[in-house]
Amino acid sequence: MTLSGAILISEVGPRDGLQSVKSIMSTADKCRWIDALVAAGVQEIEVGSFVPAHLLPQLADTAAVLRHGLTHRGVTIMALVPNLRGAQAALEAGAQKLTIPVSASAPHSLANVRKTREAMVEEVHAIARLRDAMAPGVKIEAGIATAFGCTIQGEVAEDDVIWLASQCIAAGADESGLSDTTGMANPAQVRRLFTRLRAAIGAKAGAAHLHNTRGLGLANCLAAYDVGVTTFDASLGGLGGCPYAPGASGNVVTEDLVFMFEAMGVNTGIDIEKLMAARAPLQAGLPGEVLYGMTPEAGLPKNWHPSIRT
Amino acid sequence: MTLSGAILISEVGPRDGLQSVKSIMSTADKCRWIDALVAAGVQEIEVGSFVPAHLLPQLADTAAVLRHGLTHRGVTIMALVPNLRGAQAALEAGAQKLTIPVSASAPHSLANVRKTREAMVEEVHAIARLRDAMAPGVKIEAGIATAFGCTIQGEVAEDDVIWLASQCIAAGADESGLSDTTGMANPAQVRRLFTRLRAAIGAKAGAAHLHNTRGLGLANCLAAYDVGVTTFDASLGGLGGCPYAPGASGNVVTEDLVFMFEAMGVNTGIDIEKLMAARAPLQAGLPGEVLYGMTPEAGLPKNWHPSIRT
Repeated sequence: MTLSGAILISEVGPRDGLQSVKSIMSTADKCRWIDALVAAGVQEIEVGSFVPAHLLPQLADTAAVLRHGLTHRGVTIMALVPNLRGAQAALEAGAQKLTIPVSASAPHSLANVRKTREAMVEEVHAIARLRDAMAPGVKIEAGIATAFGCTIQGEVAEDDVIWLASQCIAAGADESGLSDTTGMANPAQVRRLFTRLRAAIGAKAGAAHLHNTRGLGLANCLAAYDVGVTTFDASLGGLGGCPYAPGASGNVVTEDLVFMFEAMGVNTGIDIEKLMAARAPLQAGLPGEVLYGMTPEAGLPKNWHPSIRT
Repeated sequence: MTLSGAILISEVGPRDGLQSVKSIMSTADKCRWIDALVAAGVQEIEVGSFVPAHLLPQLADTAAVLRHGLTHRGVTIMALVPNLRGAQAALEAGAQKLTIPVSASAPHSLANVRKTREAMVEEVHAIARLRDAMAPGVKIEAGIATAFGCTIQGEVAEDDVIWLASQCIAAGADESGLSDTTGMANPAQVRRLFTRLRAAIGAKAGAAHLHNTRGLGLANCLAAYDVGVTTFDASLGGLGGCPYAPGASGNVVTEDLVFMFEAMGVNTGIDIEKLMAARAPLQAGLPGEVLYGMTPEAGLPKNWHPSIRT
């Protein structure tokens, strides 16, 4: 087993997971969960969304959670911001990285944020200018949503995806990743699109945010890794998407993703046993919520040894 | 979406699936299930095992099921045989292909078939001679079990796997595939081992029999496809392995595997909607048994169109 390049696992459960469950996790429980993730070696955590509390009451305490996250050294604490107002709140709270969802599907953009794609590029521009003024060190990621297909319009033209990512970079985003919002991606498409993305925006090509809706989550992550992607979004316990329910969000399960890469000899920097232990505070904070993950259920293989550490 | 090489999906549910569930499916129900698989375009079906009925009462009617399967044209009807006696029964029943499990792990071989690996190679040789005498057109596959790890001994040396496959070919097997009996494979290992297998035995390198025990089933299939594997074993509804139970067998789910390849533009020859319809007779024959599969649960994407047909 040889080490073949390190990757970054970006834990999105506290944002993408929690926004999809009905129960509200207490601020103290969220903080304990984040502490456990950090103890396992997770190096980037999306701790919440700066959206109006009436829209997502589950994330109303994002500023407080974010401030707690900042007490940890060596971890990037990021937040989702859908617009300039959210970005201002995130920067005021001290967010170290912002992620802005920008949909490649025109009807999805209108349905999701009530803005055209062009208007969202303008929003990215405004957020980048605010960042320049308020906190020049903060990174901005534009996450291209519905990059692999849309539940409203069906197929999304690959040209649209690459055009939109390039527009976001031109507008001041530091990186642009691709999101399989609808769980429609396949490995061939993942390889094509991330290859085109890198050709268009070079090293500013960002994270793969892939879902497991139709069971292809890890295969799609492998495909992305094969063409040079090094950052992968995932959610502990697959929180927020019952993979066996129609229309479920179904984020890739962090534990299975880390197991796959570590088994391959690809260093994630994460201790998988401690990562699995981080399910306990998550479950304690959301009693009754079903957690997924095949590796936690099956256990680690006999004589398991993770990738070589650098 | 372009067509990039056709593959063969070998349905093992009637053997590998049924042997792992406690309920006994009636012969008539098995036949209806097989009819539905054939109607969906499945071109190879492992219909049972020729083992003593007291060991696997679920498969005691394998000869009858096999004879029914033979009424379909254009489908290869195969059976598992652990030894010469089983092979004789299978050939008498008219099996078109035999698969022999040969374990690369010495302690697993003793535990599973009470024979050393060398004795199993002798058994392959005896079966090949019997085949030559009784039915020269019948193909023999040696499936190397525990090729990616063993629950008894842990790691299995890759040299052992390749040596054993080569021995089986020398003994008269027509092809040798690799089985992740224990769900311990990872994509890097799958690529390495199938590449070595092809280097050792060329076009006699056979099927990838991969499990989803730790969620890596489809990623491992993708990895195998990447290095030239064209035959993939899978089980409808993931029958026979609760993926959320420790120690589960967890065959790759046929529906999800077909969805992945068809979405990639790789022709499986299978109509996925008819394949999903084949869950009904399976469920009817095993009421109460849980069927898995993310694609059947989520449904096909909007405006779905399968690979181009040749």
